[in-house]
Amino acid sequence: MSGFKRYFSVDEALFEFKKRIQESKDFNEINTLESLNRITYENIYSRLDLPPENRSVVDGFAVRSIDVSGASPSNPIQLEIIDRISAGEKFYSTLKKDQAVEIYTGGIMPKGADCVLMAEDCVKEKEKLIVMKQCFKYQNVSRKGEDFSINDIVIKKGTLIEPFHIGALVSLGIKNIKVYRRAKVSIISTGSELKDFNDYKEGIIDSTRPMLISMVKRANLDALDLGIVKDDKDEIIKKLKEALNNSDMVVISGGTSLGNYDLVPESIEEIAKPGIVIHGIAMRPARTTGIAFNNKIPILMVSGFPVAAYISFNLFLREFIKLFYGTNLLPLPKIQGRLTKRFPNPPGIRSFVRVKVSYDNGEYIVDPLRLTGSGILSTLTRANGIMVINENSEGYDENSIVEVELTQPIEEVLNNAKNLS
Amino acid sequence: MSGFKRYFSVDEALFEFKKRIQESKDFNEINTLESLNRITYENIYSRLDLPPENRSVVDGFAVRSIDVSGASPSNPIQLEIIDRISAGEKFYSTLKKDQAVEIYTGGIMPKGADCVLMAEDCVKEKEKLIVMKQCFKYQNVSRKGEDFSINDIVIKKGTLIEPFHIGALVSLGIKNIKVYRRAKVSIISTGSELKDFNDYKEGIIDSTRPMLISMVKRANLDALDLGIVKDDKDEIIKKLKEALNNSDMVVISGGTSLGNYDLVPESIEEIAKPGIVIHGIAMRPARTTGIAFNNKIPILMVSGFPVAAYISFNLFLREFIKLFYGTNLLPLPKIQGRLTKRFPNPPGIRSFVRVKVSYDNGEYIVDPLRLTGSGILSTLTRANGIMVINENSEGYDENSIVEVELTQPIEEVLNNAKNLS
Repeated sequence: MSGFKRYFSVDEALFEFKKRIQESKDFNEINTLESLNRITYENIYSRLDLPPENRSVVDGFAVRSIDVSGASPSNPIQLEIIDRISAGEKFYSTLKKDQAVEIYTGGIMPKGADCVLMAEDCVKEKEKLIVMKQCFKYQNVSRKGEDFSINDIVIKKGTLIEPFHIGALVSLGIKNIKVYRRAKVSIISTGSELKDFNDYKEGIIDSTRPMLISMVKRANLDALDLGIVKDDKDEIIKKLKEALNNSDMVVISGGTSLGNYDLVPESIEEIAKPGIVIHGIAMRPARTTGIAFNNKIPILMVSGFPVAAYISFNLFLREFIKLFYGTNLLPLPKIQGRLTKRFPNPPGIRSFVRVKVSYDNGEYIVDPLRLTGSGILSTLTRANGIMVINENSEGYDENSIVEVELTQPIEEVLNNAKNLS
Repeated sequence: MSGFKRYFSVDEALFEFKKRIQESKDFNEINTLESLNRITYENIYSRLDLPPENRSVVDGFAVRSIDVSGASPSNPIQLEIIDRISAGEKFYSTLKKDQAVEIYTGGIMPKGADCVLMAEDCVKEKEKLIVMKQCFKYQNVSRKGEDFSINDIVIKKGTLIEPFHIGALVSLGIKNIKVYRRAKVSIISTGSELKDFNDYKEGIIDSTRPMLISMVKRANLDALDLGIVKDDKDEIIKKLKEALNNSDMVVISGGTSLGNYDLVPESIEEIAKPGIVIHGIAMRPARTTGIAFNNKIPILMVSGFPVAAYISFNLFLREFIKLFYGTNLLPLPKIQGRLTKRFPNPPGIRSFVRVKVSYDNGEYIVDPLRLTGSGILSTLTRANGIMVINENSEGYDENSIVEVELTQPIEEVLNNAKNLS
């Protein structure tokens, strides 16, 4: 029962974690309409030109730009209207000198015409069109292949599918795409004292596991709930084997420091190769975090305390997602604000400080929450941001301008918001 | 077939939209474990103290702070170890002068003890404990009710449930909570020329509707797909009635400008009260956007062009969510970067410019994509951000520092990223 011999820096820990994660080779071929929030497994190419032919992008008149050159209110030019084309319709003859065709948004450009006059720049008198404005070549025309040409990359490998990607795939008639199989993350809690939420009568409820499972779901990965295991090495080993056989990452909470009952590290060492690569990280909270691997499958040992578990899982989960899928992630929303009180940082430690951000008088105010044990979940629920203080910093003075990653919205007075834009 | 008489400013449009949206009165009572991404319908209060009693937050020895006052390596103090307490266990007698109880993380503090010495600050010799460091009152102790006290608000009304909220609810034994019924948004496309993606052989595929449906899903709302309706007033009215009977918001795309076939506005005017409140907004793209209401249900008329539809639906959907649920939203991730080329803005227009953001030499580079028709979906798929230029701006010069809302990640070179923290 003693402290760790050495704490690894957060950067060392990330380095050791990241260098062993391998990009997945598993994919699913799914319907495009079901692909939201999935990640492309390969480049997706266009098999056609979009639009497939030149089209008008306004309601107006398709003309030859040469015929209306110099047209203005003081120099109106008269053309003859010879037909009308609706969206998706086609005109089969060729526009000749001084002719115009009435055309609607999405209408296919008639042969001969090279631009579209907007309706408001002309006067239509029965079959005559009086043109008050000139029109340059391709004005108001969406050109064949302008959106996507045959063999263009529509979506790159490793892209998170957003609604506009679905729009693009649909417009190109691409019915199925290959996406990465969703990563499976097993969650195990250890501790003979823990009771499961569903059949709890008295004692300590395991709140860390439901939180970690939700974090996995929130990240659009599949969570495998492996329940609570007692402080018994054989049982821990059995559960770890089950997890390693069924998932791409394992997270085990509790029993990971160096107390008498902390059987997780020795269980891992017995069955995993290369086993534990990092144990003890110079961060606050979550200094008992450990990283192990069985081949390329990471086993993250996190604290049984929910706040510590949250902070360390969050840190490593993001890196796992990037490397497993070969993808990039949107940055977290951040703000810069003024610190309400001095916040010292112990040398060599990276601190993840829960803060409350508010908006007052044109600036953000950052108020660090009172820190006691890392079991204090209310510091996360009451906070709406995390201020990260690096290990080379001695902390910040009162009124310093600091950067905060937002974890929840900043409260607005909704009544006021309703009257503002 | 002509332009709008007047374009409303984006702020006017938002004001007219927001002032009519009413907070929902419908809720579901659901299992806490199923509540991720839902929004609380009422304040949730704690029914107990958490922790329910004082607990140790470390592995060590529970002692009376008065007994170890002044202890140091040069002034060690000797205590007698009288028992051992594991997590969740309880010690039933009272600690007396110069006594210590070995205690594990999560163990309930014995009566009489008021602090916990960490294991590494003592030497244990059989039943004797040699203390090398003093310990102040409540040090390493998580106090009763410290996380949540009875009647504390655990989660405020109007809060998006995050994984740490689930952790808190579980630890308090709260099995069910009330959350807002998910808002239902109906999506209708209009246009006789449009073909549905699923049974498309040739012609123009309706790509806007699948995109809008995905946007609704992405926002964790329920999407009702009402399909494509032909350019026929009776059919449009029938579909609008169906939508209004079944949803909290209606989005109808296409047929919303002022062309001959634009029957949507007159259909709305025939059945909805107060009907159209805004038609034509001084924004680029999406100037044909219209807002109507039937009582408190908004009907958003968006362009049939996917990019215009995306930009305007995105703008109004966020405001709808805030007011319907009485909630705040996380800000979008933003960056500031250097503009690669001059970008003029027409006076009085708010422009939503699709840009490609990259990272080079310590700064973000913002490259506006070539803008042609608002049908060009590739400007959204190729872009990773939107630069908003306000109506009072004439645009930006080359090398200006501009703000961009990110819609997709900024690409990193992943091989390099793997070797960096």
